Amino acid sequence: MTITGHRNIAVCLVFFMGLFQPVLATDKPSDTIEKASPDRMETRIKALSQFGKNADGGVDRVAYSDADLQGRAYIIRELEAMGLNVRIDAAANIFARRTGSNPSAKPILFGSHIDSVPGGGNYDGPTGVIAAMEAIDLLNAANIQTSRPLELVVFSNEEGGLVGSLAMRGHLKESALTVVNASGRSIGAGTNFIGGNIADVASAEVEADKYEAFIELHIEQGGILDEEKLDIGVVEGIVGIGWWDVTINGYANHGGTSAMNNRRDAMVSAAELTLAVNRIALEMEGRQVATVGRIQAFPGAPNVIPGRVEMSLEIRDLKQAKIDQVYAAVEKAAAGIAVRTGTSISFEEIDVASEPAPTDPRMRKIIESATQALGYSYRTMPSGAGHDAQDMVHIAPTGMIFVPSVGGVSHSPNEFTTPQAMAKGADVLVRTILDIDAGALEK
Amino acid sequence: MTITGHRNIAVCLVFFMGLFQPVLATDKPSDTIEKASPDRMETRIKALSQFGKNADGGVDRVAYSDADLQGRAYIIRELEAMGLNVRIDAAANIFARRTGSNPSAKPILFGSHIDSVPGGGNYDGPTGVIAAMEAIDLLNAANIQTSRPLELVVFSNEEGGLVGSLAMRGHLKESALTVVNASGRSIGAGTNFIGGNIADVASAEVEADKYEAFIELHIEQGGILDEEKLDIGVVEGIVGIGWWDVTINGYANHGGTSAMNNRRDAMVSAAELTLAVNRIALEMEGRQVATVGRIQAFPGAPNVIPGRVEMSLEIRDLKQAKIDQVYAAVEKAAAGIAVRTGTSISFEEIDVASEPAPTDPRMRKIIESATQALGYSYRTMPSGAGHDAQDMVHIAPTGMIFVPSVGGVSHSPNEFTTPQAMAKGADVLVRTILDIDAGALEK
Repeated sequence: MTITGHRNIAVCLVFFMGLFQPVLATDKPSDTIEKASPDRMETRIKALSQFGKNADGGVDRVAYSDADLQGRAYIIRELEAMGLNVRIDAAANIFARRTGSNPSAKPILFGSHIDSVPGGGNYDGPTGVIAAMEAIDLLNAANIQTSRPLELVVFSNEEGGLVGSLAMRGHLKESALTVVNASGRSIGAGTNFIGGNIADVASAEVEADKYEAFIELHIEQGGILDEEKLDIGVVEGIVGIGWWDVTINGYANHGGTSAMNNRRDAMVSAAELTLAVNRIALEMEGRQVATVGRIQAFPGAPNVIPGRVEMSLEIRDLKQAKIDQVYAAVEKAAAGIAVRTGTSISFEEIDVASEPAPTDPRMRKIIESATQALGYSYRTMPSGAGHDAQDMVHIAPTGMIFVPSVGGVSHSPNEFTTPQAMAKGADVLVRTILDIDAGALEK
Repeated sequence: MTITGHRNIAVCLVFFMGLFQPVLATDKPSDTIEKASPDRMETRIKALSQFGKNADGGVDRVAYSDADLQGRAYIIRELEAMGLNVRIDAAANIFARRTGSNPSAKPILFGSHIDSVPGGGNYDGPTGVIAAMEAIDLLNAANIQTSRPLELVVFSNEEGGLVGSLAMRGHLKESALTVVNASGRSIGAGTNFIGGNIADVASAEVEADKYEAFIELHIEQGGILDEEKLDIGVVEGIVGIGWWDVTINGYANHGGTSAMNNRRDAMVSAAELTLAVNRIALEMEGRQVATVGRIQAFPGAPNVIPGRVEMSLEIRDLKQAKIDQVYAAVEKAAAGIAVRTGTSISFEEIDVASEPAPTDPRMRKIIESATQALGYSYRTMPSGAGHDAQDMVHIAPTGMIFVPSVGGVSHSPNEFTTPQAMAKGADVLVRTILDIDAGALEK
């Protein structure tokens, strides 16, 4: 393969040109690299957390806000101080490039995001960006130049709909540009505000085969790694999401004058359905989840039997077939509930659904091997949350590394990952980068 | 008893003075009275339904609206045309007096209200007022003068909190006067708008022992009489109402990353509690009802496990002890649900609760006898809905007559009671009035 050839040439160049600290040809570069610094990572997390800091100890660093702009400026200063070449694409994604010894080789891309949900925490997104910076620091400290160029990416507006990575995929819809988030700015205006150029957003689309690989490190946001006391999650993929609006129609009537055995109470029906959703997702084998997160009863007065209830249904799994299977079971349960309660139940599928996005099996293997080599404990697992990686799977061989969220808390000021856990993630990340650079994807 | 003496004197006066069509001393006046006219009653229902008529065939005759004022003007014109002496008290209650042969005897009061809920029907309230007018028509047609003065009352703003009858009881709170209803007017300004005098509202309070009795005829608003094909409901009392705000605290978390067996989902807990409320009220012996009419999940996003749910709980029964018993069972069930779901459930009692208001057992007996004498079918039953009668029980011996609501529908444009059913109610009402006038309460 020509790519393997490039690598060999690059390694030889590094060795013979003597421009860098010599690396023994018999050693892998990853053998000479230091362990990541928990202190340095924690210092950067703390520094970044000042931008958009809120009273609860978390951040309101919503994309396109002043805090987002300031946080990005801080990251850019750091990246430039590390000697990287920073550019911002039209979708306002930040790219910081580290030269490879073979400048024409396909770069290895890695990174995450720094924007937060309103009332968010300090680790969802920043952990991945700061781990990527740590990887660069470690390579710099070890005087390792990779063959391939390395690119660190900070995606724009992840929380508001994976805007940056959708643009890279060429899937950012025209209709999305007018959507306003909590910053008060639309995706269009906000992209320009933080340094993009929405008029030219098509230029952010990445040509096929541009990158050798993409790696995202992220906090788990769930409690599995923390509960099982594991260091690393090797992500099998990002689960697909099905969303439905559920409407239950009964008969609104006076809560005082309608006998208990003569009611068609939409709320009783909704309660039965909520429990059925929970039971089905709980009892079916697998790791599927299903949630009723929103509910409203109409007319909504304490003394009126609800004639209508509207609620949401969300089902997630790594396989579309499982999402379909859970939904079919819910629909079947609903038919029985409708008959028993004298109500009607209808489901309307909502078009925010996303398909499961499996990571590249070779990437999983590389991450797993790097983790094993470090002696860190790990498991494979799906990502229940969405990530820019789910767009990136369409652009490049993609892998994801999870680090533990203490207590599984996320999207909350209480979100926390220990400096030691972040550092272990950065260790895996930098070794994964080096293994890919060494041709692991071609094995 | 002096009151019995009055009655006897009055009957003698009627007989000997020869001012009216002679009534044989051996006949009861009720034997000579005609049956009520379904047509006349239906005509008045239709005439009144023009005021505030809405597109659905119901009325928006909210108290203090222009439609309310116009409807009241129509009723007053009719009452004056019937020869009654109309006055409006400071709380805007309308009183229409028919002279008794013994002007110093305590009057018999009867009536209901004509204001509606927004989007209401044509029968809740008006049926009682028009039945009262029919009773007067029947007495006029039969040339019967009662011993006691008769007073027909149209209470002001029943739907907005029994305002007129609360004022008569002296229980209208100062703080209520600023409450604005769907008319856009406050209780204070609205009372003045329809002819009251809020500055002097204390004058509306009725002195103890002013009335011999109070009778309210009303549509059932439930489906029991209609279902059992009965003509008349003899109301045992107005149920008491307990209201609670229920707060369920779980743990809000990402709907995608939290495994099903590791959730503290406040919505699942709320669903279990809703079903427990329903089951307890359904399975316990008696006619208690319990309703969850309002619910909201927080943060309320489809992809977030609710960390908090707020919902209402209403329990009604004719006996306070039963309300307490149902609540105790719900509280006990909640304790188990809280443990099972890892949530906490708290109940805050709300001060809108009203105590059960039993009708006077003698009044029930009189209504029952009148119904039997007419050969109409009936049953005794509680009123699940609130009525001005629940204030009047504190002012005078009070009875209530229910007529059937087709399909149990109420507070809806589809509310309907047949003209024949209304007429049977008026038959019972006028005979009840005559029996009380004849001293039935003193037996």
